[in-house]
Amino acid sequence: MSAFDQLVQHSKKVSNFKHLAAISGWDQATVMPSGGNQARSEAMAELSVHIHQLMTAPQLGEWFDKAQQEELSNEQQAALRELKREWQQATVLPEDLVQAKSLAGSKCEHAWRKQRVDNDWQGFEANWSEVVNLSQQEAQIRAEANGLTRYDAMLDLYEPGTNSASLDVLFADVKTWLPSLIDQVIDQQSSLELVSPTGQFHRATQKQLGMEVMQLLQFDFEHGRLDESVHPFCGGVPTDVRITTRYDESEFVQSLMGIVHETGHARYEQGLPKAWAGTPAGEARSMGIHESQSLFFEMQVARSEAFIGHLARLAQKHFAEHDPSLMSRTNLQRLYTQVKKDFIRVDADELTYPAHVILRYEIEKALINGEIKHTDVPELWDNKMQAYLGLSTKDNYRNGCMQDIHWTDGAFGYFPSYTLGAMYAAQFMAAMKKTVDVDGAIESGELSPIFNWLSSNIWQKGSLLNTDNLVEQATGEKLNASFFKQHLMSRYL
Amino acid sequence: MSAFDQLVQHSKKVSNFKHLAAISGWDQATVMPSGGNQARSEAMAELSVHIHQLMTAPQLGEWFDKAQQEELSNEQQAALRELKREWQQATVLPEDLVQAKSLAGSKCEHAWRKQRVDNDWQGFEANWSEVVNLSQQEAQIRAEANGLTRYDAMLDLYEPGTNSASLDVLFADVKTWLPSLIDQVIDQQSSLELVSPTGQFHRATQKQLGMEVMQLLQFDFEHGRLDESVHPFCGGVPTDVRITTRYDESEFVQSLMGIVHETGHARYEQGLPKAWAGTPAGEARSMGIHESQSLFFEMQVARSEAFIGHLARLAQKHFAEHDPSLMSRTNLQRLYTQVKKDFIRVDADELTYPAHVILRYEIEKALINGEIKHTDVPELWDNKMQAYLGLSTKDNYRNGCMQDIHWTDGAFGYFPSYTLGAMYAAQFMAAMKKTVDVDGAIESGELSPIFNWLSSNIWQKGSLLNTDNLVEQATGEKLNASFFKQHLMSRYL
Ligand SMILES: [Zn+2]
Ligand SMILES: [Zn+2]
Repeated sequence: MSAFDQLVQHSKKVSNFKHLAAISGWDQATVMPSGGNQARSEAMAELSVHIHQLMTAPQLGEWFDKAQQEELSNEQQAALRELKREWQQATVLPEDLVQAKSLAGSKCEHAWRKQRVDNDWQGFEANWSEVVNLSQQEAQIRAEANGLTRYDAMLDLYEPGTNSASLDVLFADVKTWLPSLIDQVIDQQSSLELVSPTGQFHRATQKQLGMEVMQLLQFDFEHGRLDESVHPFCGGVPTDVRITTRYDESEFVQSLMGIVHETGHARYEQGLPKAWAGTPAGEARSMGIHESQSLFFEMQVARSEAFIGHLARLAQKHFAEHDPSLMSRTNLQRLYTQVKKDFIRVDADELTYPAHVILRYEIEKALINGEIKHTDVPELWDNKMQAYLGLSTKDNYRNGCMQDIHWTDGAFGYFPSYTLGAMYAAQFMAAMKKTVDVDGAIESGELSPIFNWLSSNIWQKGSLLNTDNLVEQATGEKLNASFFKQHLMSRYL
Repeated sequence: MSAFDQLVQHSKKVSNFKHLAAISGWDQATVMPSGGNQARSEAMAELSVHIHQLMTAPQLGEWFDKAQQEELSNEQQAALRELKREWQQATVLPEDLVQAKSLAGSKCEHAWRKQRVDNDWQGFEANWSEVVNLSQQEAQIRAEANGLTRYDAMLDLYEPGTNSASLDVLFADVKTWLPSLIDQVIDQQSSLELVSPTGQFHRATQKQLGMEVMQLLQFDFEHGRLDESVHPFCGGVPTDVRITTRYDESEFVQSLMGIVHETGHARYEQGLPKAWAGTPAGEARSMGIHESQSLFFEMQVARSEAFIGHLARLAQKHFAEHDPSLMSRTNLQRLYTQVKKDFIRVDADELTYPAHVILRYEIEKALINGEIKHTDVPELWDNKMQAYLGLSTKDNYRNGCMQDIHWTDGAFGYFPSYTLGAMYAAQFMAAMKKTVDVDGAIESGELSPIFNWLSSNIWQKGSLLNTDNLVEQATGEKLNASFFKQHLMSRYL
């Protein structure tokens, strides 16, 4: 067996254990009774250790050396590049740093759940200090290993091939037009009448409605499920993708669009190249590209006039006892495009969302690069919230820098993916429209032409291309913010 | 760390991986979409290999040698005995035999699913021949290792400490009175009027009813769930026990009693000693003792007049739109104690069930001991069915020797557990009644005194006692068939 084949076989073995981790994690988040949590957590920790041992097995170094001498096809070379990337990321950190960060992160995250409610910055800061410190050490080691700046080395974990120099350009562009656009849209929307949901929307009915919309979006129910969890997610494995939502019985619009979003993630997973299943080449390209698919479904497809027409029709069918004016196409469209300056990222609308992300990016970049201290964060946050959204978070940590889970366990470098995803999605749609009658497909309810384009340009590529090549081959140019701007202008003005 | 502690720590590691196997298996049987099956089976096979490697790790032999020299408490000695038993069972077979049997078993079982429908003995026999052959080899190796006869070495896998000499005595006893008792009861029941279910019994309502009965039986929903699967089972782990049932909407009596049965299994698991969790000493004593708990719930408690009164009341509440005479106490009692000579073990009633088991026991014992050939089985089956239940299975393989899954993959030695369970259950009830007002507890609906007895005499013992000691300490004597006979006489005559 060639060294390359040995690496692939080993990767599939690791993937089998990751499969079990994904299913046990899904179970824990959806159906596990609370009393099962401790034993489950121990079992999953044991599995993590085993997976880490496999991923850093001593024979891998030699196999990589040999494989690089072997004659490989272009695809195999790409697969080898991704295998090596994963291996280097797993091996570059010393074990004691990995453990220390994991411990500090768990402790900080656990305490944060209460500290956030209590607006307790002092308590949080005491734990977070260590998380930041260890993350800086991690960034330093990763930076030395691959010759990047410290923040870029962290960014590389989520967005391989992207760096802060490119992000600075993209986000600087956005900052020139976003704040004034937000003001203009809010002003314009202030005169619109809006019917808000009242009464009860049964969860079972919401689920039925959601599943019909998933069918419209051609979710493959032979290879996936819809369930409930406190925090919606897309999990499982490509042959069995598990998406979740949460239902609020006082309205249906949130869970419905949440299901559309997760369906986008799910179809990417379901559409990944089977030939490379169980290896990194058969996985999603990056967090940003993953988010581009969920946001393509949510923002580009489902918030279009034509698709909202479908949602209106289906909602009226399922909620026939409710006021139909709530579910008119016009009213649903207004509900789904309402813009509001507010504190909380996860509740933000399409237009203000990038402001939340750019603020976090600027702060975490300075923090990881060692240009600011973690104690500087609240004031910086306040300044930037004032500048981008005109809101003060002074002494309001809970709705300020303590609102997100990401920083509590040191996932620095993740936030840009959200806005990169929105930008990619807009650029993909613009490219798709050159060859596909997108509006006609949505109007007809037969969306295959859209999915065929995504499948051949994005899903089927897995990680066989680097991100820049993926985007260039799909759209003819590198990522730039102009399509995103154009999309927002035409939707909101 | 002492060698004993090392063994315990290693066992808990293995147990963590078994936890993941249990949950993935539950998922596969209950919620997994069909398209996920291949990747899941591969992941679970990988996990099995890993578990087997851990259980046969080379350092264990030395640890066992050392541990046997260490000063251990009585409980620790018992725990060490069970650890060693498990280790020996895992290590005694050569790898190639394990793999060959697993392969032949999978092939035979897979083909059997269709062959049984087709009544295709020739086709089945061709595959089964190899399964029997490999099982005989397995029995031979196990017999040499522990000085038992071949069949007893297989029996030991499911019923440690039991042997065919004792089973011969127990079953010979049963055979003296069971056939005539069956005839007498059938004759007596022929004049009884019976209201059969008609109309539709919605699965959601059946589930609600089932969950209320589980509450009456004090199932701990903080540490377990009820779900649906094609073949009902009790799975999961002691901190998170997953029971399943299947619903037939044309009636409710089967699923309801099925839920009671699995709840018995579940409460045993939930009640196992936490101090030994993750080691064999903290596991169920044997398959027969496990079945004794499910049958205690199903046959001893739930088919009592008083408990059927509760079932009648709850059924009438949930199925208020149905004919109440169906759900009268008397009618439910008649439905739940109807005796009928028939071909299929899994559909058999309490009274004819032992005949099905004894028949299988006698055949598999002769087969594994090499006294008969596998091609002799159909004729032997027919002879014994004629003798015990007056039915011919000539040329009727599908309802004869091809009806069970157990033999298809070589699980020889398992069948006796069913009837041992029924006998243990009867003996436990007789003993319990000496100190507990069982009828009063059931009548009142507050069943704690019953569960307290089971908990302290059975559940909390795990595998810390051998089976004989467990039964003697709980009931004052060794297992014998008289309590079972007495129970059947007083219920059915
Ligand atoms: Zn997303
Ligand atoms: Zn059972």
